[in-house]
Amino acid sequence: MTERVVLAYSGGLDTSVAIPYIAQETGAEVIAVAVDLGQGGEDLEVIRKRALACGAAEAVVADAREEFAADFCFPALRANALYMDRYPLVSALSRPLIVKHLVAAAERYGGTTVAHGCTGKGNDQVRFEVGLAALDPGLKVIAPARDFAWTRDKAIAFAEEKGLPIDVSSRSPYSIDQNLWGRAVETGFLEDIWNAPTEDLYAYTADPARPREADEVVITFTEGVPVALDGRALGPYQIIAELNRRAGAQGVGRLDMVEDRLVGIKSREVYEAPAAITLLAAHQELENVTVERDLARFKRGVDQRWSELAYDGLWFSPLMDALNVFVAEAQRHVSGDVRLTLHGGRAVVTGRRSGASLYDYDLATYDTGDTFDQSLAKGFVELWGLPSKIAAKRDRVVG
Amino acid sequence: MTERVVLAYSGGLDTSVAIPYIAQETGAEVIAVAVDLGQGGEDLEVIRKRALACGAAEAVVADAREEFAADFCFPALRANALYMDRYPLVSALSRPLIVKHLVAAAERYGGTTVAHGCTGKGNDQVRFEVGLAALDPGLKVIAPARDFAWTRDKAIAFAEEKGLPIDVSSRSPYSIDQNLWGRAVETGFLEDIWNAPTEDLYAYTADPARPREADEVVITFTEGVPVALDGRALGPYQIIAELNRRAGAQGVGRLDMVEDRLVGIKSREVYEAPAAITLLAAHQELENVTVERDLARFKRGVDQRWSELAYDGLWFSPLMDALNVFVAEAQRHVSGDVRLTLHGGRAVVTGRRSGASLYDYDLATYDTGDTFDQSLAKGFVELWGLPSKIAAKRDRVVG
Amino acid sequence: MTERVVLAYSGGLDTSVAIPYIAQETGAEVIAVAVDLGQGGEDLEVIRKRALACGAAEAVVADAREEFAADFCFPALRANALYMDRYPLVSALSRPLIVKHLVAAAERYGGTTVAHGCTGKGNDQVRFEVGLAALDPGLKVIAPARDFAWTRDKAIAFAEEKGLPIDVSSRSPYSIDQNLWGRAVETGFLEDIWNAPTEDLYAYTADPARPREADEVVITFTEGVPVALDGRALGPYQIIAELNRRAGAQGVGRLDMVEDRLVGIKSREVYEAPAAITLLAAHQELENVTVERDLARFKRGVDQRWSELAYDGLWFSPLMDALNVFVAEAQRHVSGDVRLTLHGGRAVVTGRRSGASLYDYDLATYDTGDTFDQSLAKGFVELWGLPSKIAAKRDRVVG
Amino acid sequence: MTERVVLAYSGGLDTSVAIPYIAQETGAEVIAVAVDLGQGGEDLEVIRKRALACGAAEAVVADAREEFAADFCFPALRANALYMDRYPLVSALSRPLIVKHLVAAAERYGGTTVAHGCTGKGNDQVRFEVGLAALDPGLKVIAPARDFAWTRDKAIAFAEEKGLPIDVSSRSPYSIDQNLWGRAVETGFLEDIWNAPTEDLYAYTADPARPREADEVVITFTEGVPVALDGRALGPYQIIAELNRRAGAQGVGRLDMVEDRLVGIKSREVYEAPAAITLLAAHQELENVTVERDLARFKRGVDQRWSELAYDGLWFSPLMDALNVFVAEAQRHVSGDVRLTLHGGRAVVTGRRSGASLYDYDLATYDTGDTFDQSLAKGFVELWGLPSKIAAKRDRVVG
Repeated sequence: MTERVVLAYSGGLDTSVAIPYIAQETGAEVIAVAVDLGQGGEDLEVIRKRALACGAAEAVVADAREEFAADFCFPALRANALYMDRYPLVSALSRPLIVKHLVAAAERYGGTTVAHGCTGKGNDQVRFEVGLAALDPGLKVIAPARDFAWTRDKAIAFAEEKGLPIDVSSRSPYSIDQNLWGRAVETGFLEDIWNAPTEDLYAYTADPARPREADEVVITFTEGVPVALDGRALGPYQIIAELNRRAGAQGVGRLDMVEDRLVGIKSREVYEAPAAITLLAAHQELENVTVERDLARFKRGVDQRWSELAYDGLWFSPLMDALNVFVAEAQRHVSGDVRLTLHGGRAVVTGRRSGASLYDYDLATYDTGDTFDQSLAKGFVELWGLPSKIAAKRDRVVG
Repeated sequence: MTERVVLAYSGGLDTSVAIPYIAQETGAEVIAVAVDLGQGGEDLEVIRKRALACGAAEAVVADAREEFAADFCFPALRANALYMDRYPLVSALSRPLIVKHLVAAAERYGGTTVAHGCTGKGNDQVRFEVGLAALDPGLKVIAPARDFAWTRDKAIAFAEEKGLPIDVSSRSPYSIDQNLWGRAVETGFLEDIWNAPTEDLYAYTADPARPREADEVVITFTEGVPVALDGRALGPYQIIAELNRRAGAQGVGRLDMVEDRLVGIKSREVYEAPAAITLLAAHQELENVTVERDLARFKRGVDQRWSELAYDGLWFSPLMDALNVFVAEAQRHVSGDVRLTLHGGRAVVTGRRSGASLYDYDLATYDTGDTFDQSLAKGFVELWGLPSKIAAKRDRVVG
Repeated sequence: MTERVVLAYSGGLDTSVAIPYIAQETGAEVIAVAVDLGQGGEDLEVIRKRALACGAAEAVVADAREEFAADFCFPALRANALYMDRYPLVSALSRPLIVKHLVAAAERYGGTTVAHGCTGKGNDQVRFEVGLAALDPGLKVIAPARDFAWTRDKAIAFAEEKGLPIDVSSRSPYSIDQNLWGRAVETGFLEDIWNAPTEDLYAYTADPARPREADEVVITFTEGVPVALDGRALGPYQIIAELNRRAGAQGVGRLDMVEDRLVGIKSREVYEAPAAITLLAAHQELENVTVERDLARFKRGVDQRWSELAYDGLWFSPLMDALNVFVAEAQRHVSGDVRLTLHGGRAVVTGRRSGASLYDYDLATYDTGDTFDQSLAKGFVELWGLPSKIAAKRDRVVG
Repeated sequence: MTERVVLAYSGGLDTSVAIPYIAQETGAEVIAVAVDLGQGGEDLEVIRKRALACGAAEAVVADAREEFAADFCFPALRANALYMDRYPLVSALSRPLIVKHLVAAAERYGGTTVAHGCTGKGNDQVRFEVGLAALDPGLKVIAPARDFAWTRDKAIAFAEEKGLPIDVSSRSPYSIDQNLWGRAVETGFLEDIWNAPTEDLYAYTADPARPREADEVVITFTEGVPVALDGRALGPYQIIAELNRRAGAQGVGRLDMVEDRLVGIKSREVYEAPAAITLLAAHQELENVTVERDLARFKRGVDQRWSELAYDGLWFSPLMDALNVFVAEAQRHVSGDVRLTLHGGRAVVTGRRSGASLYDYDLATYDTGDTFDQSLAKGFVELWGLPSKIAAKRDRVVG
């Protein structure tokens, strides 16, 4: 029986060329799998047909939008996931989900090998391959762009030679990846890190400098998960999609940074993530109100490690599982409403309320009704500072 | 000889009342010390005279503006100091410096006791008293507002009884603290955490929603310390003051949050810190360019702990000293220029350049000239993922 | 109705004296609660009767041995809990359990106040009072020894005056606390930290220097919990008790250290914990075999924080709950056997086996059958070292 | 001119065979460099001559004993370096020093390539190659055993074919590495992790079970560095060598563990490190006495990371440099004497004294002279527990 290779298919030049190339090099049949992560852009049915036109034996589209929102974006939100305190892990979150669908397709179609279009200097190859090793260590992996040392020119020449239905002329000067959680742009003139981004880079966000009316939104959370906007109960996908639209219209969520790749180099990245940045601002503030101080302080370290693992391709790993149960426990009371103003590129929290609040008006107020016993403070301050006081005395003696 | 009490004097109601009150309760002479931290507002000579009018035996003004900028604000910047990832430690940074000047005044004027106006439910009492214990453990401390259980009404009544030259009618409904690094506002209607801040709260920042021309600034750093704006070499105080003006005019640096106080309660705080927020954005991005990945990842934990220590009143402590040498070493190469656009409440980095950059165009580029050897990736990915692969296999067997 | 005070009663001088003293000072009835934590020593029924003889309105003994072993000692084991990397938290683990029984007694007997015998400079007052505040914030607390400033002489005089049935002459020169998990000795000549401990300090362990035959034990764990010794299934209490006996006979588990108390001072402590130290050695090694590397590395930080929280009186706290779910997840595969030799004061692991082992003989062996693909190493090493290589190049240029 | 390859030469089979093999495969001249790290065993002049007999163009011995003790072992001691809380990094510490001498030899003898004998599944290849990349990124690296896929049988056959002066018959069934800081044994029957180590594995330590008189030693430290034994000032090498002898005679320092290698597998290792384990016990206790609590707690995380970096081959890295300055600052007051009993496999601290002690007898004692103000405790306890108390109240309401 003919071997079958399951290919992660995007519809673009590289993975389209990969279909006949893999077939030619390996003699295998290619099963193209496109995954709908809410990336918008080209119709996925068109993409599916292109795969067949390029020679795929089978081509399937998996609608993973709700799964992506509920099982990948919202866990990231609960972990306040910002790699390097900035990047909401747009591409990093999508790769393990694509891997799940590739493995499922391999089972369904009898694939023994999985292929992806990543290069050898990015993070995504790691996310694909480490994920595959975790989910089905029996599958082989090929990465034509990396393993056969392609360049863009070679790909175009091969596409033309084979008469593939790809419009290579319209290809963006940038490398772009996008999904429900955001959009990443790299390469081109951005590789000079002194160059400022230009307005044409952006697709999810309007120019924040353009005058407009502000928008106001109330986000309701239950245990760290957004469940409603302005009082309307909505599913995970709908909440993110609506906030992408509303916050994007206000120019919220643009990022421009130099980033540490797992493979050891620094790269320049521009991101747009209007819903992600809005939700993260709201979630962090609701944690401020509902999470106890020591837990909140320790969780910052957990959150950082969570982001590093997701970035570094270790979504399916024992440490990630253990961090996730920690985060889940920490979210038990992260329920309530957060009101934000969306305007001029900013998502600003202006109010918060929660039935599980730890903010105690009676203890906090300086007005009548204050229940805080100030006489306790003196003993606290003395013993709190005692170790540094003893050390200071010692330093004075010892010098 | 008459005992002398050195009082941290702000010129406001509470510390003005404290002068005759301390004299009356203790029989001591009061030495009022006002410290210029770039807080602006009332003229400090006026304040000094008010202290004398209230009965102080001596009243002095210490100009600590350059010291504050260089030795307190900039170390915080090098540690990317944001308590709870948000608050740039405006008041927290000023207290240890005030303590230094109180201790110096006690030595100069023969003071045996130090007094401050803090209440018993805030953070500042801890910062004052732990700092004093570290710098001169022999000094006694009194905090009239806390130890004698004052209320505002009692203070006003006492002021009127003594005929003190204080205009109590104009007092703000808010509790305000401000200095070069920013401005903090609390109490009043903000104690209801669902209430949005109103425009009248702000003094350092213009309304970000007001249309205006953007400003652009290039900040030059040497080893993590800002040394020039737009190519003009400036001292620490000047840099912060100019950025407060320019970023403040663009509405940059407003914050509204619920915060974990050291004394165990949560409180609602509104901050303005235009220069601090601008400098922190620039500094973080310059670190992204010049600091190696493992060091950057570990430094996040150091930075968090630094912020906690500064917030928690442990400025003068052995751990703080050790964190500071770590940070200094990590800043050895944080030199270069960062360009930002200041506009509409946002300080956005648009370019960075450094002679000590670790961004390597030749390794990063996908264009001609790429020197990254992609053949190395396969082995890396395999061994990077090997532990989670072995664990996944085990899980499959063990279940 | 007469108020009732629930007293944590040990049978010793301080808490015996507390019974009539509390009654006299407060007019309340005293309910004495003694908790059996496997401490051995005096018969608890004798202790109970002494409480009545001292004037207690009620006196009860709670058998908490299994609960202590299962719900306090074993969770500590799973977290490899060693405060300052040394101390297995003997007293610290017992206090929250005593608190549980005090709160239960207060409910049962209508107590409105809880009393304990701790002084004001130790850790246990914090563990009692913070635990009580968490479990029943409505209860008042009194600590006669601290709040009424007792000294030992005052206590003896009071006991003699009241004719209490206490033999004050035989009191140890040391302060001792002991339970199933170990024994703590402090004060007396140990307060000179240059003095070596003497053999008379020890009660749980024989002199390790005394010649004897070695003992060998195989401990079986299921998910991090010991379930059998030498193949015999045993309950938690039995396992610890048998190991105390066997490892104690070999002199295992003596500790002598200077320790950081929560109240800010350093103190000298001598401990014996034969079972605890043996179980910890076995558990750590079983983790080495069954826990994935990244998880193991992160868990060390979790374990340290767990120990600090338990030591610092924060057993009932949101962070402790979240650390516990992390630890539980990390223990999912910590199942198997560990063989130890107990001899001469040492508990030495000599073998380990597990159905959930991550040790892979085929990957590890250098003999025939080696399945490790060494050709992967080159790429791994190159990219692993790339960030420091780039930094080294930069340092060479920049200096 | 003929190329020159600088080879890290141990005198054993693998690196002896490498000399003619490298010459044959590359046409280069081989410069053999043996480094004296206090490993004892064969005379290094004999080893040097063997290199020449095997065809080396030059053969040199570098006496690095003092450098190893002072610049590698003692920094590890100051960081309490124990990988996985157990392994004192014996081999890991030596590799960066060997690298330094290889780079020096390459400069001196005009070498353009460096060669080492490591396999592709161990840690040492990483330590060599990452170190080389940091110290001289221009040097090429070859690892014959890994890159040319040698086996032991191939090596023996090649040695016989070339008539190399190696006695292959006497080769140990174990893989052994040893130096001043300790000795590592692996492979052979140890690869079955249920097998107990046998007495013949050990060379640095006597059987701890053998009856003998105890030894007592006082170690004097200055800023974390040992400077004297029993009052005799000694150099770093002498101190470690003497303690290896004395503690080794008492059977101190044996370790048996399953360890996480950097390349992703677990391996079984047996170590002996009598001096290292003794010094670490003493140093940790002196830190307990002289380092302030918050600093000590944070330093545990620094120490762990230090150990991981050293283990993982990142000795020459920006993070290591920054950790080192932190550690140095933390050692400022780690000066004083520690007395230990060496006996029966245990190095037990029995006394400590320091002019920089933070142990304050007057605060710690429960006898007359107690200066601790117990009245401060109540306020401290209340505010310390306030966050968890508020959270407990909330949990009661919210459930």
